[in-house]
Amino acid sequence: MTRYQQLADILSQRIKEGLYIAGERLPSVRVLSDEHGVSISTVQQAYRQLEECQLIEARAKSGYFVRCSSNLPSLPAICSHAQRPVEISQWENTLAFLTRGDQENVIHLGVGSPDLSGPGLKILSRLLSRVSLHQSAEVLEYDNIYGSPVLREQIARLMLDSGNHQSAENIIITSGCHGALAVALGSVCQPGDIVAVDSPCFHGAMQTLKGMGMKVIEIPTDPISGISLEALEMALDQWPIKAVQLTPTCNNPLGYNMPDERKKALLTLAQRYDIAIIEDDVYGALAYQYPRPPTIASFDDDGRVLLCSSFSKTVAPGLRIGWIAPGRYLEKALHMKYISAGRVATLPQLAMAEFIKQGHYMQHLRRMRRQYQRNRDIMTGWVMKYFPPNTCLSRPEGSFMLWVELPHGFDSLRLNRCLLPLGVQVAAGSISSASGKYRNCLRLSYSKPMTAEIERAVQKVGKVIYELLAESEPKVTLVADEPHL
Amino acid sequence: MTRYQQLADILSQRIKEGLYIAGERLPSVRVLSDEHGVSISTVQQAYRQLEECQLIEARAKSGYFVRCSSNLPSLPAICSHAQRPVEISQWENTLAFLTRGDQENVIHLGVGSPDLSGPGLKILSRLLSRVSLHQSAEVLEYDNIYGSPVLREQIARLMLDSGNHQSAENIIITSGCHGALAVALGSVCQPGDIVAVDSPCFHGAMQTLKGMGMKVIEIPTDPISGISLEALEMALDQWPIKAVQLTPTCNNPLGYNMPDERKKALLTLAQRYDIAIIEDDVYGALAYQYPRPPTIASFDDDGRVLLCSSFSKTVAPGLRIGWIAPGRYLEKALHMKYISAGRVATLPQLAMAEFIKQGHYMQHLRRMRRQYQRNRDIMTGWVMKYFPPNTCLSRPEGSFMLWVELPHGFDSLRLNRCLLPLGVQVAAGSISSASGKYRNCLRLSYSKPMTAEIERAVQKVGKVIYELLAESEPKVTLVADEPHL
Repeated sequence: MTRYQQLADILSQRIKEGLYIAGERLPSVRVLSDEHGVSISTVQQAYRQLEECQLIEARAKSGYFVRCSSNLPSLPAICSHAQRPVEISQWENTLAFLTRGDQENVIHLGVGSPDLSGPGLKILSRLLSRVSLHQSAEVLEYDNIYGSPVLREQIARLMLDSGNHQSAENIIITSGCHGALAVALGSVCQPGDIVAVDSPCFHGAMQTLKGMGMKVIEIPTDPISGISLEALEMALDQWPIKAVQLTPTCNNPLGYNMPDERKKALLTLAQRYDIAIIEDDVYGALAYQYPRPPTIASFDDDGRVLLCSSFSKTVAPGLRIGWIAPGRYLEKALHMKYISAGRVATLPQLAMAEFIKQGHYMQHLRRMRRQYQRNRDIMTGWVMKYFPPNTCLSRPEGSFMLWVELPHGFDSLRLNRCLLPLGVQVAAGSISSASGKYRNCLRLSYSKPMTAEIERAVQKVGKVIYELLAESEPKVTLVADEPHL
Repeated sequence: MTRYQQLADILSQRIKEGLYIAGERLPSVRVLSDEHGVSISTVQQAYRQLEECQLIEARAKSGYFVRCSSNLPSLPAICSHAQRPVEISQWENTLAFLTRGDQENVIHLGVGSPDLSGPGLKILSRLLSRVSLHQSAEVLEYDNIYGSPVLREQIARLMLDSGNHQSAENIIITSGCHGALAVALGSVCQPGDIVAVDSPCFHGAMQTLKGMGMKVIEIPTDPISGISLEALEMALDQWPIKAVQLTPTCNNPLGYNMPDERKKALLTLAQRYDIAIIEDDVYGALAYQYPRPPTIASFDDDGRVLLCSSFSKTVAPGLRIGWIAPGRYLEKALHMKYISAGRVATLPQLAMAEFIKQGHYMQHLRRMRRQYQRNRDIMTGWVMKYFPPNTCLSRPEGSFMLWVELPHGFDSLRLNRCLLPLGVQVAAGSISSASGKYRNCLRLSYSKPMTAEIERAVQKVGKVIYELLAESEPKVTLVADEPHL
């Protein structure tokens, strides 16, 4: 047995004995090296082995932590879907979700907005102010039809982190990632076409599919490895599918990172059936691991992937800066951008280009990733504490969304109606499906600082869930099942 | 004969004798009142009579001027069209037009951008800066899905000027007027539907029709009274037209204001055939007359008009703030906005709301209207001076576009190719048609201050036009026809 294996065994034993508990920070590499009289690299190898065994996890700039996976609730089930194209419903529920997000005096635990209180954003506000005054001629004039050249340069540089070697000329600025997804769809599909999607799926993309007259086939999706390639292949065999649209990195709402090998396999499948891939990477830069996982687009060698992203989740949604790298569909994508919105506002683009160039963007991103990873554990803890014990939970590897599955028959739309007088809302699971599935699921966001006020809101949600579940159970068990909250 | 008629006769005589020449300012009301010993109201009545006879025209804050209509070139001809739906082409030519507009070192006489050098815009830049710093939380967060409530309030107030009584709740903010037109089309049409349009027509709207899979019927349009209702009615009888899309006020590119009675008659026609009207009012507030002409929407009592507009032509296109008042199609329009762009950038909306509220908008508008009216006369004069004598010209009553018609067979795309090495471009007429008509026409913008540099550019265009026309004529007349430039 090598020295690093010996050390790994010792540490593993300590974790199992509860000497280091779930979520706790492990000793630094230097401390362990001194303690055991071994080299730094031996400690590093030992830690790597424990990581591979899923006993511990590294967090950027914070060190190694004991994973709490052994104590975690079960994962949500893979939803079985009718393997046929369906019309998309759920606009009314989505609209209710969106307008409640705009209301004041409601703690909306479901809204996908990032934390905007960090110091990086103060710098950004100053840049917006400076650009307003010092580049006023550019700010007021029509933007370049592709988008600001300086910003596209910076985005091309950022994309190297996800393995993409794109020149700035192949990137088009859009109105947020939502605008990019609409451009992508319009570039590869005609109304009436069938698009395959991961399921559950981002509600906004679903409504865009609806508005553009598409039908969808919802493909069962694993909460750890992503869209089922087997089910997708079956669907491709049966139906004239034009494209597959998915969020393979920091999936919304499930939070997984699709393994690289499966990303490659999906690309091979797309090549075999000659379909386009619309890859939503809006949360990709918020993966907790470093370096961030590669995009499917980074493996693409024949331009069939349309990569869509934005700064709405990494920096601030109010800027409305997204982009698309549409591969072989560049000219069609430019037409789709032009016809749907003309150009994009110039001021936020120029300020953002400066924000990246001066290094503030990467610094902000690092801070946010750490915050969201910490918040994930806190929010997971609160859900485990306040929700019924049989609640299933996703295990996000990036971003700031938790997917919660309650027993079959539970109604999250009703939950929201009960929560409204209490000033709390969640995102009902059904808006993440074309056909209103996932009604027993809900999405919680953990982007904001995890204050006592948010904890109380989660507690209220848990209390109402208990009440609703009790109602649907035989009267005799009503009291017995309810804990003291 | 009353006293005011006597006075009107005297003034009319003087104009005919050349005592007051075309474009000259007439004496002020007070001066004439003293000179002729009549009351102020008598002079005003006399001037009103001369206005009605089209001999003179009033200009806001500047007084009365002799009209130069008697000397003006002929109007462009009404184009006859195949009265059937056509597929839309011209994207390549439109793209060339758009990308050349983005190039530096090219004087682009065709681009529809307003003048951005006025003092009002310095105030706007300061407001943008102030909002960036003092409302940073709002600026960075997702905008309300309908658009900023404070801005929608201000727009509702502005719309009273065009006769529209709309509550702020019925207005949706979009990404420019282009975004509003896309939302409007998506709200009332399905791909494959037929839309009737005025012709020539705004090239951007045409490409949006193309991108959304519509077919169009181009309706012959009079350069003074607008779309031919007779031809439209014939088309409605023959084809299942879903909507008519037009720019009835300060038309782009023809510059006319459709008379109120014809606007009402169009609405009656739309009611009879139960079609929607998509009214592009983006230039409406730049009508030279005061008060500005009413919109078709102002006569609408059953919500079939979708009014689209923006601040891109009145203030600054880089802000990307447009809006739609979609009448009975409000919910569908909201869906179309959401699916194509998500939300709209918050910062420009908040700054613009403040700009209007503090009174700067109306002041800026008055200044711009005067400038554009003066520029129209200067540009008209230059075209008459430098272009061949048989050139036909529009007589804009608002906005900042001149439509130029050259002899049949002239090729404005070739003109642009010849102009490129000279660093000048115009808008080729063919992009204003679905099917590439108007190739012998071009559009000139006169928004910018009319400098000697612009005059030289117009002169260069004229010189190349003479050369191209000479080439296509029999050799013997080549020299004789060409003046000394």
